[in-house]
Amino acid sequence: MIYADNAATTRMSDAAIHTMTTVAQENYGNPSSLYGLGQRAKEILEKAREDIAAVIGASPREIIFTSGGSEADNQALLSAAEAGRRKGKKHLISTAFEHHAILHTLQKLEKEGFEVTLLDVHEDGIVRPEEVEAAIREDTCLVTVMYANNEIGTIQPIRRIGEICRRHGVLFHTDAVQAIGHIPVNVADDNIDMLSSSAHKFHGPKGVGFLYVKKGAPLFNLIEGGAQERGRRAGTENVPGIAAMATALTEINAKREKNAADLIPKRDRLIEGLKEIPHSALNGDAVCRLPGNVNFCFEGIEGESLLLLLDDKGIMASSGSACTSGALDPSHVLLAIGRVHDVAHGSLRLSIGEGITDEEIEEIIRSVKEVVAYLRGFSPIWRDLQSGKRKYIL
Amino acid sequence: MIYADNAATTRMSDAAIHTMTTVAQENYGNPSSLYGLGQRAKEILEKAREDIAAVIGASPREIIFTSGGSEADNQALLSAAEAGRRKGKKHLISTAFEHHAILHTLQKLEKEGFEVTLLDVHEDGIVRPEEVEAAIREDTCLVTVMYANNEIGTIQPIRRIGEICRRHGVLFHTDAVQAIGHIPVNVADDNIDMLSSSAHKFHGPKGVGFLYVKKGAPLFNLIEGGAQERGRRAGTENVPGIAAMATALTEINAKREKNAADLIPKRDRLIEGLKEIPHSALNGDAVCRLPGNVNFCFEGIEGESLLLLLDDKGIMASSGSACTSGALDPSHVLLAIGRVHDVAHGSLRLSIGEGITDEEIEEIIRSVKEVVAYLRGFSPIWRDLQSGKRKYIL
Repeated sequence: MIYADNAATTRMSDAAIHTMTTVAQENYGNPSSLYGLGQRAKEILEKAREDIAAVIGASPREIIFTSGGSEADNQALLSAAEAGRRKGKKHLISTAFEHHAILHTLQKLEKEGFEVTLLDVHEDGIVRPEEVEAAIREDTCLVTVMYANNEIGTIQPIRRIGEICRRHGVLFHTDAVQAIGHIPVNVADDNIDMLSSSAHKFHGPKGVGFLYVKKGAPLFNLIEGGAQERGRRAGTENVPGIAAMATALTEINAKREKNAADLIPKRDRLIEGLKEIPHSALNGDAVCRLPGNVNFCFEGIEGESLLLLLDDKGIMASSGSACTSGALDPSHVLLAIGRVHDVAHGSLRLSIGEGITDEEIEEIIRSVKEVVAYLRGFSPIWRDLQSGKRKYIL
Repeated sequence: MIYADNAATTRMSDAAIHTMTTVAQENYGNPSSLYGLGQRAKEILEKAREDIAAVIGASPREIIFTSGGSEADNQALLSAAEAGRRKGKKHLISTAFEHHAILHTLQKLEKEGFEVTLLDVHEDGIVRPEEVEAAIREDTCLVTVMYANNEIGTIQPIRRIGEICRRHGVLFHTDAVQAIGHIPVNVADDNIDMLSSSAHKFHGPKGVGFLYVKKGAPLFNLIEGGAQERGRRAGTENVPGIAAMATALTEINAKREKNAADLIPKRDRLIEGLKEIPHSALNGDAVCRLPGNVNFCFEGIEGESLLLLLDDKGIMASSGSACTSGALDPSHVLLAIGRVHDVAHGSLRLSIGEGITDEEIEEIIRSVKEVVAYLRGFSPIWRDLQSGKRKYIL
């Protein structure tokens, strides 16, 4: 079995599971309680906050724990919009290939009278900082650009975009769900005002994430209630989950460079191997991408059948974002980089992680080649392409 | 060590911890993924939904998983308000002693132009159904009354309130965070349209809860993003946490009657024992209360000192809601039942749970008596009361 869908979710590390279990068993107190058991839970919470802040170059008071990346994205965008509304600034800038937690929140804001500019991400899947600058207006209250795309893995020029935003006095948020733990992220160096992250993308638990909010940046509650998180996010803190998130992040951060050095050649070998499939193409820039991300389009096939047959061969992969895998529409990310509908349907995302071997990489290449060839044998589109009735795009 | 703060949070049951750990280790797939590992996670998710629905008499499609009770409360109230707004109905009815997840959300809605009626909860801490009925207007879009109060444990006449709401065609929500698993709750029998629950109050994990929404009742997203929970709550599902919640709920529900039969006499002995302390009073109705809840006011002392000294004696308790324990203001719940500030400051909530022994009950009584006497020895208020300078209230 080869798990090549780490962008969808990762297996919790043994250390993270151990932390979660131990804290649940031994430190089950409510961190708001005055007695020792509660105060120890509070200490665990604050230690987790320090550890997480240290990894991204923030101060602990700038970290707010959430139930995950989507909640963090929602709170960040709604907060920036609310602050903008109060100043008469109702324009937001983002990109066409953001995660739906961003895009759907922007659509909600459009219904409330905000104006949204979605920047082009070009064929390489990379936002141009100069286009961000050109889009900034007097009434722009937020720029939000993801750190690395969840489907095609392209890494955005966040530091330069952040520098532009800071120069123009515009708030800058980044959805760093795919980046944290995998590539270097430093909120100070990168000029980031708000950042969203999710633990289950870096071998932490599901249902936990965090939002970094730079001191002085606006923040309004998404969830109202008790005074937890200094009144900025209500609800009894998920202490075991938060502690496990800190364990996982500290752990992955310590080996981040080693992991990347190990994964990048494997990723590149995978790309090279899959390129041998005729009428295929890599999606997104080949270099400026996450160490573990490979995303291909194959002409003449359906991504869903490809996935099911790969599963039969013990290879777990996806066609795009897991969050929309039930949908029949082609990926909005692939459409954003200019892939046409037919081609976008035949996509495959392989997101490899720590521990994958060279043999497994070769096995993936062999299996994908076999399955693509097999499926093309049944495909009416492929027959039309072969017979010249239809023109190849790739 | 005696843990008597189960209303703040409970220790996860061993079975729930086992489920959480096993699912995290073995079924870490994203439930939205097509391959076997993802589909097995999806099955676990749907099995949990069925199990939870069965306990409260709902159908599985009426259960939405959230990050806890606060999120569920926020989503329920904002959804009802949004549906009301669309029909020009901008009046909500609630009570003065709801949890802050309700009260603060209502305040937010008031700022948006909604009108809120907060019903009296009387000295016994019980809402009168006829007063709910009297408060209903043509433009009422929601009645929200908690199932059992989190501080004083009084159980509300939910079935009768639900019946009134249904008769008047008004949506009815209940925050059942303290009730689920501890007293019988059936959404059909009780005429409930929406219900919030939190796993960590019934020996499940922190950071997980659910919202029941009756088929046909309005629901809008609080968290936008992916299509999880049939498009009604975005974010990768916390499968290990949700499965553990189902384990815990199934487990506690099976022994609910036995637990109640065991706890009620212990609770009543505790009440009887503490009543022997001069100038003390039980808060809330003595009969119509949660099996594990005891809440007292002692004149002439500070609740915080009481808690710290009890902690020294190995007894963990609270003065009110853990969610506001950092605050210096007296409990809004105690004020709502007519306690004056000075008296409300000297409150103690003991929430006992399964496994507590008769010896431990006696130990709590002895310790509270000792600590109250000790603190009164230092208290200027108590001195004034004793000397007649100040009049006893209790």
